Order: sequence, then structure tokens, then C-alpha cells
Amino acid sequence: MIRKLIEKIVKTDAPIVVGLDPMLSYVPEHITKAAFEEHGETLEGAAEAIWQFNKAIVDATSDLIPAVKPQIAMYEQFGIPGMIAYKKTVDYCKSKGLIVIGDIKRGDIGSTSEAYAVGHLGKVVVGSKTYAGFDEDFATVNPYLGSDGVKPFLKVCNENDKGIFVLVKTSNPSSGEFQDQISEDEERPLYELVAKKVVEWGEESMDGDYSNVGCVVGATYPEMGRVLRKLMPKTYILVPGYGAQGGKGEDLVHYFNADGLGAIVNSSRGIIAAYKQEKYSAYGAEHFADASRQAVLDMIADINGARK
Amino acid sequence: MIRKLIEKIVKTDAPIVVGLDPMLSYVPEHITKAAFEEHGETLEGAAEAIWQFNKAIVDATSDLIPAVKPQIAMYEQFGIPGMIAYKKTVDYCKSKGLIVIGDIKRGDIGSTSEAYAVGHLGKVVVGSKTYAGFDEDFATVNPYLGSDGVKPFLKVCNENDKGIFVLVKTSNPSSGEFQDQISEDEERPLYELVAKKVVEWGEESMDGDYSNVGCVVGATYPEMGRVLRKLMPKTYILVPGYGAQGGKGEDLVHYFNADGLGAIVNSSRGIIAAYKQEKYSAYGAEHFADASRQAVLDMIADINGARK
Repeated sequence: MIRKLIEKIVKTDAPIVVGLDPMLSYVPEHITKAAFEEHGETLEGAAEAIWQFNKAIVDATSDLIPAVKPQIAMYEQFGIPGMIAYKKTVDYCKSKGLIVIGDIKRGDIGSTSEAYAVGHLGKVVVGSKTYAGFDEDFATVNPYLGSDGVKPFLKVCNENDKGIFVLVKTSNPSSGEFQDQISEDEERPLYELVAKKVVEWGEESMDGDYSNVGCVVGATYPEMGRVLRKLMPKTYILVPGYGAQGGKGEDLVHYFNADGLGAIVNSSRGIIAAYKQEKYSAYGAEHFADASRQAVLDMIADINGARK
Repeated sequence: MIRKLIEKIVKTDAPIVVGLDPMLSYVPEHITKAAFEEHGETLEGAAEAIWQFNKAIVDATSDLIPAVKPQIAMYEQFGIPGMIAYKKTVDYCKSKGLIVIGDIKRGDIGSTSEAYAVGHLGKVVVGSKTYAGFDEDFATVNPYLGSDGVKPFLKVCNENDKGIFVLVKTSNPSSGEFQDQISEDEERPLYELVAKKVVEWGEESMDGDYSNVGCVVGATYPEMGRVLRKLMPKTYILVPGYGAQGGKGEDLVHYFNADGLGAIVNSSRGIIAAYKQEKYSAYGAEHFADASRQAVLDMIADINGARK
């Protein structure tokens, strides 16, 4: 699957991913109003609003970008109707030819991790039939439980040509509390130990020059990004924290390999709520999707300016 | 909410929780057959089978136990119909007076963690209304992202009288890969650093003698359990790994405080698939729920024998 993602990145010349993390407060009033008129102020109404919001943004940007990253928490907060909106978003994005990275940050042990893997990337057996539950192309995975938690994902990835991005160094201010602890035995921080394991796991799932086992390293820690890039030469890095969280294109130069590949940078709020920024305010709420399109173009220019 | 859980534990004299982690292979044929006849071999059919399986076990055991712990992965693997079965299970268990620990192992940063917290423990705002999406009483939380990931859960817990169990030391064989790394600065393993943070977070959410911020420590590491018990005197420990994973009642003595409280031990497969064990085979598949009831009684006796 990483090969397919790379093909799309090369074709669009855009190593970026749009984070479809819709808060209701981002959705323009004309959309929520229509959704609430149809479904009332209900979970179904909220789910309809975020789905219509997503659809408009995907329609306005899908020719420019290789991939989207819906953040499942933003849907899960609306219960079952929210999960249905998540699934609709995944399916719609795939129908538009986009690669879908499910930002689900799951991770458990043994058969439980396998159930997550099967539900999001694989196929579950029901009697004599098999079904894909959510059917994303990639999923993000939390490594705290160790290899027992990650290997079931590898198995499902290898059987279904899918991929994962394992959290290594996250973009948030307190990510260092545990991730930066220096291991006495290994004389390096925990995030580097996770990175070493990512390389090991990745060897079991090579797909061309890169592995289907990618990782997450935040844009907000560029010095660590530089070190991690070298430590994991065949690992694709999914980079959150660009834009709204403070990361800039120039910070990201060292997340890429010499081949110009190796990293894909996410922006969520900076794209989907672009019309709320002063820079794009001329579009107005009515033309929010056009503002998102312009924000995508600006982001591609910023990232490529640094990358090339 | 921990106060309510303790009241239920004292009333039932059973510091145990039944893990509702239904694999289709655990469900007796007469149940799957009926579900497939109604819905076909579909995701809906699978979801109906696990729901009927759960319902029978809950009906047969709810007078004996304080709480259940549905593992969401086992439902999520069946996509949307599976999530609906999860929600039905949560609601049904609450209607029977049980405390519901959602084993969701979520964790993200900032507004994303808040969305998970709101979706599982709180209420989401839709226009002028509010709704509880999944509405468990407790949720399990992954700490890898640090305080940014956990604090949004605290906020929601305090607003809604709910609780969390933070993963400290998990029961699986490879849990030590990262959790046991000795921090050079702190001269103690990572799981103890997480434990210290659990205590700190817990101080913000005291509810009687214990905190609404509990933790997870596997039954399979009794020596670490002993140390962690002392390090976190006011923290309830949710203990997985009993039974099928190898932990025994006698291993668990030191997970309890001198007041006989402080720990709640989970068994999943050992209870819900009891009829498949030789010990309970006389019940047969037809009477699987009675086998589960007997397994609960045996587990209570084993744990209380060690605890008292």
C-alpha cells in the first residue's frame, strides 16, 4: 500500500494529507442549519452536518492531494451516527481515488489487536463470508503495549496490502513526558527505541523502496525528526503538527529523504477550517471549500519550497 | 464513579469484572444459527449473535458481579453493526445495574482526546441539545502521549462523575519492551513513571478514599503489582491477565490494599467461554450461560480466598 501512496504523492507532487477532523464549530451555519432541519438537533443531524462538510472539502481538493486522514475521535464523539459518518467519509474518499489513513491510534494485545486490525484494514470472517468493516488503507497504531500489540497489524497488512503508521514521537507539548525518557540500558530516548522496533517490524512488510510500516513524528520537533529520519531510512513518516500546531515547511526539510520522498505532512484545521482564518476570509463561510482548496495549494507550495 | 464501583464490589463481595470480549468462535452454534437465519451470514448477523451471547451471560451473572468490561475491538471488527452491538451491550448492562468499563484504550492529544472522552464518558453538544454517544462508566486510556492525552479525560470525568483506568503495566509477554525501560534520569522503569503521573492526575479526581483515575496492571507481573500497589495507594487497579492469560488468585494478594479494596480483577475468556473448558463441559453448549455463572462463582472464591 505504501507503493500506491507514493505513486499518488509523485503524481500530485504533493507530499501532504488533509486531516478530516471536523468539529461542529468548523461547519458553516448553512450546512448545520440544513442538517438540523432534516434531522433535528440530534446525533444524526450532527453526523449529517460533518458528512456534508467533509464531502464539499473532498470535492474541492481531491484532484490536488494523494490522501486524507480522518480522525475517528471526531466522529466517535457522536456515537453510532458519528461512526456511520466516518464510514461514509472513508468510502467516499476511496471512491474519489484518495488513499485513506484512518487516524485511529488503536493498540491492544494479541487477539484484541488483531480484531482492530481486521476491523480497520482486513476482513472479518462471518460463517462462510468475509467482510471489511471500516476498510481504511492505513491506520495509526499506538506502540505502548510492545510487539504483541503491533504484530497482529503486520499480519493483516501483509494479507491485505495495507499499512500502518506507528506513533514514535507525537507533536503535542507533553509528548516528552514518557517518549523522551532516556533508557539506561540503551542510552537513547524511548522514541528512538520505538523507532528501532518500527524498522524491525517494517522489514517484514517491504513494498518497493519503503515499508508498509510507517511512523508518526511531529513537525513540532524538527531536531528529533532529523535523527529519526536517519534511523529509519525506509520508513515513511506521517508528520502531524504542521500549520495550526506551529510546524512550518522549512522545519520539515529533514523529514524527507534525498529521493524527495519519505514523508507526508498532515494539516487538519489549517485546511478544513481555512475560511475562518483572516488570510482566507474573503471566501466567506458560503465558499469554505474554495478556501480549503486555496489552503491546500499554499501548503503544497510551502512544503515543496522546503523539500526541493 | 469509583465510589459507586466500590459500593457494588462490597455489596457483591466480588472484586471481579467479567470481560465481554465475544469472539464469534465462542458463540454456541444454536445462537449463531438463529442469528444467521434472521440476518444471513452478514455483519448484522454476526453482531446479533454476539449480542444474544452477551445478553444470556449478563442475565446469568449480573446478580453476582459488580461490573462488566466490554472490549470494543471485538465489536469494532464487525464495523457499524458491531458498534451497534457494543452500544446495546453497554446499555443493557447499565439497565441491569452493572458498572460498565469500556475497554477502549483510546488516547490522543488535546481536542482529539477530548472528543474520545466526550464520546465515551461525557455528553456532546449538538446545537441546543446534549447527547451521550456511548455512555460507559469508565474507559481505559493509553498514556503514551503524556498529560495532553489524559487531562481531557479528567475534565470530562469530573464533569460527569465518570472514571478512567490508565494503562501502566499491561499483562502481555512483550509489555516490557517499552514499559520496563529504566529511565536514566529517574532511575526507575517507565511503568513507574506512568504510575507517578497516575497518582498526580488522580489527585484532581478523588471520589471518597479512591480516585476516579485508576490504572491497569496485569496479573501476570505480580512482583511489579506489589510495587505499584504501594506507589499508588489511592488508585484502583484494574487487573487483566487472570485465568486464560495465566494469572492466579494467589498471585493477586498484593494488588489489594489492607482495606481489602483497591483492585478489581478481570476475566474474559475464562468466564464467557467457560463451557468450552473441560472443567465446565458438563453444561454443554446449550447451557453456556450457566457454565459462565459457575465460572464466576469459582473465580470469586479463588480471588477472595487470596484476598482475605
